[in-house]
Amino acid sequence: MNPIPEPEFVQIFTTGGTIDKVYYDAGDDYTVGEPQIGRLLEEARVNFPYAVEALLQKDSLEMAEADRERIRAAVEATPARRVLITHGTDTMVETARALEGIPDKTIVLVGAMQPARFLGSDAEFNIGYATAAVQLLGPGVYIAMNGQVFRSGHVRKNRAKLRFETVP
Amino acid sequence: MNPIPEPEFVQIFTTGGTIDKVYYDAGDDYTVGEPQIGRLLEEARVNFPYAVEALLQKDSLEMAEADRERIRAAVEATPARRVLITHGTDTMVETARALEGIPDKTIVLVGAMQPARFLGSDAEFNIGYATAAVQLLGPGVYIAMNGQVFRSGHVRKNRAKLRFETVP
Amino acid sequence: MNPIPEPEFVQIFTTGGTIDKVYYDAGDDYTVGEPQIGRLLEEARVNFPYAVEALLQKDSLEMAEADRERIRAAVEATPARRVLITHGTDTMVETARALEGIPDKTIVLVGAMQPARFLGSDAEFNIGYATAAVQLLGPGVYIAMNGQVFRSGHVRKNRAKLRFETVP
Amino acid sequence: MNPIPEPEFVQIFTTGGTIDKVYYDAGDDYTVGEPQIGRLLEEARVNFPYAVEALLQKDSLEMAEADRERIRAAVEATPARRVLITHGTDTMVETARALEGIPDKTIVLVGAMQPARFLGSDAEFNIGYATAAVQLLGPGVYIAMNGQVFRSGHVRKNRAKLRFETVP
Repeated sequence: MNPIPEPEFVQIFTTGGTIDKVYYDAGDDYTVGEPQIGRLLEEARVNFPYAVEALLQKDSLEMAEADRERIRAAVEATPARRVLITHGTDTMVETARALEGIPDKTIVLVGAMQPARFLGSDAEFNIGYATAAVQLLGPGVYIAMNGQVFRSGHVRKNRAKLRFETVP
Repeated sequence: MNPIPEPEFVQIFTTGGTIDKVYYDAGDDYTVGEPQIGRLLEEARVNFPYAVEALLQKDSLEMAEADRERIRAAVEATPARRVLITHGTDTMVETARALEGIPDKTIVLVGAMQPARFLGSDAEFNIGYATAAVQLLGPGVYIAMNGQVFRSGHVRKNRAKLRFETVP
Repeated sequence: MNPIPEPEFVQIFTTGGTIDKVYYDAGDDYTVGEPQIGRLLEEARVNFPYAVEALLQKDSLEMAEADRERIRAAVEATPARRVLITHGTDTMVETARALEGIPDKTIVLVGAMQPARFLGSDAEFNIGYATAAVQLLGPGVYIAMNGQVFRSGHVRKNRAKLRFETVP
Repeated sequence: MNPIPEPEFVQIFTTGGTIDKVYYDAGDDYTVGEPQIGRLLEEARVNFPYAVEALLQKDSLEMAEADRERIRAAVEATPARRVLITHGTDTMVETARALEGIPDKTIVLVGAMQPARFLGSDAEFNIGYATAAVQLLGPGVYIAMNGQVFRSGHVRKNRAKLRFETVP
């Protein structure tokens, strides 16, 4: 069999969320800090072409309609066919829906239940998982969480179980 | 579009390698310890069905022909169609070749350049990446390293650059 | 010179604070979790006699007068002459003052600016530092933070600089 | 009571050892890398004056007589009265003996059983502990390990138990 073609360019957009949360001081509690994904990709010594652009730095509960329009505009504007978006988990499902209908692009949203800077965080696994998903899936809008790929419109966050699950 | 079907069962075999290395004492230097992948999958709260079986606990430089036969026999024996193997990076390419020709199975080998218990290790990213790869790829034998999928027979470890690369 | 006598028993009381904060989910934000000091002492394989008792599990901004009375009663009640208290940093100074005047005991308060479960946390350094301080200092009430020993009544938290400093 | 005087300057010498070990690749196994103590002190936001000078970068089993003479010369040459030395654990006892007899200096040797870059390492606790010890102890040569201060000449490493213990 032939070798697999070299991986395509991946455009990464960061929007904030738990994955990027840092801890300054008890008075301030958690704050969304600098995007962590660049550091995680470097530590993993990945060897595919990518660029990281920070669009927002928000807890996803604070995202408004205008924020989703901005994300959609950025996805539409990039020439990249493969787009990875880091996002808070609480409204990831809503942002996925807002990205439906963009043709010929594989769009994967990913986040973390625990900040990337936390011991035992799910961030590194999730970023690795989503990286393969965005490379291997066909066009569409997906959420990659808990070691599973969900199609937009068929997924919800189960807050009691702290995980994503399929909606038929 | 329809929801994506629930993920299939993944059989995970561990064989040792850097990913599982621990550090006891200067006199002993590094030792291959207990498999780390179970802990990593739990931390990531993955929600797909899997089982972990430890086949070997070796530095891959110490693997002999009999070890590879044992791995092949285990892969052939499992009814699972999706098989993930953690393996030392130095002879991962050889073990992949020894697994070629098993029909109807997606077999993905993965390892780490740094022990999973090391700060900044590539282990968690790689396990996440390989998990998506084993779920999404068709039948064949693959190596998933450095954020890239390689087909067995078309990959080598570049020891100078400490990464895997395609062989035409 | 003679060997140093074997270290004395240290009674450790935990009261909560940032050092024990965990992260459940974006909706809940940070929560004070199980005491971390036992795990840290085990990881350090310490070889002195100690016991850990959890008195409170609070952010120190939420501590009331009754909480401080409870801590003081526990310190007075223990037969141990060396007492280590983990505590939130925001009102550590107040609790130290509330412990003044207990005779013949070396009482050291310590906390962390970052949760112990955070990468790059000051928790492990601080616990190590405070352990030596409680073993080596004479009777009195002290705060051990930022690599410095402060005497109760002569210390404040500088919230702008996120560190403790001497008050003349 | 009066405030405690501001902490004195601490001269830190690094000599290598497990605490500074990194992991490059299975073929090379562990290597003694850049000194980690500076990073650890910055993470702990310590607020006492210090300087770090790298004298050696060796596994302590490879230290020769000339290495110990060099360490002694550096300790004698510094005007600092408080000297902290990071050192491999296997011959820390020998180096301590080689430093005996230097007047008016508090000299504390410290190391780690696990590399500082390892999850669950004892390095941060030990550095914190040794920092308080070098500030609080009177003149002499000490080893600070396992949450205990040992006087040079009355300490050995128990390799079976992987900890230091008093020799009468």
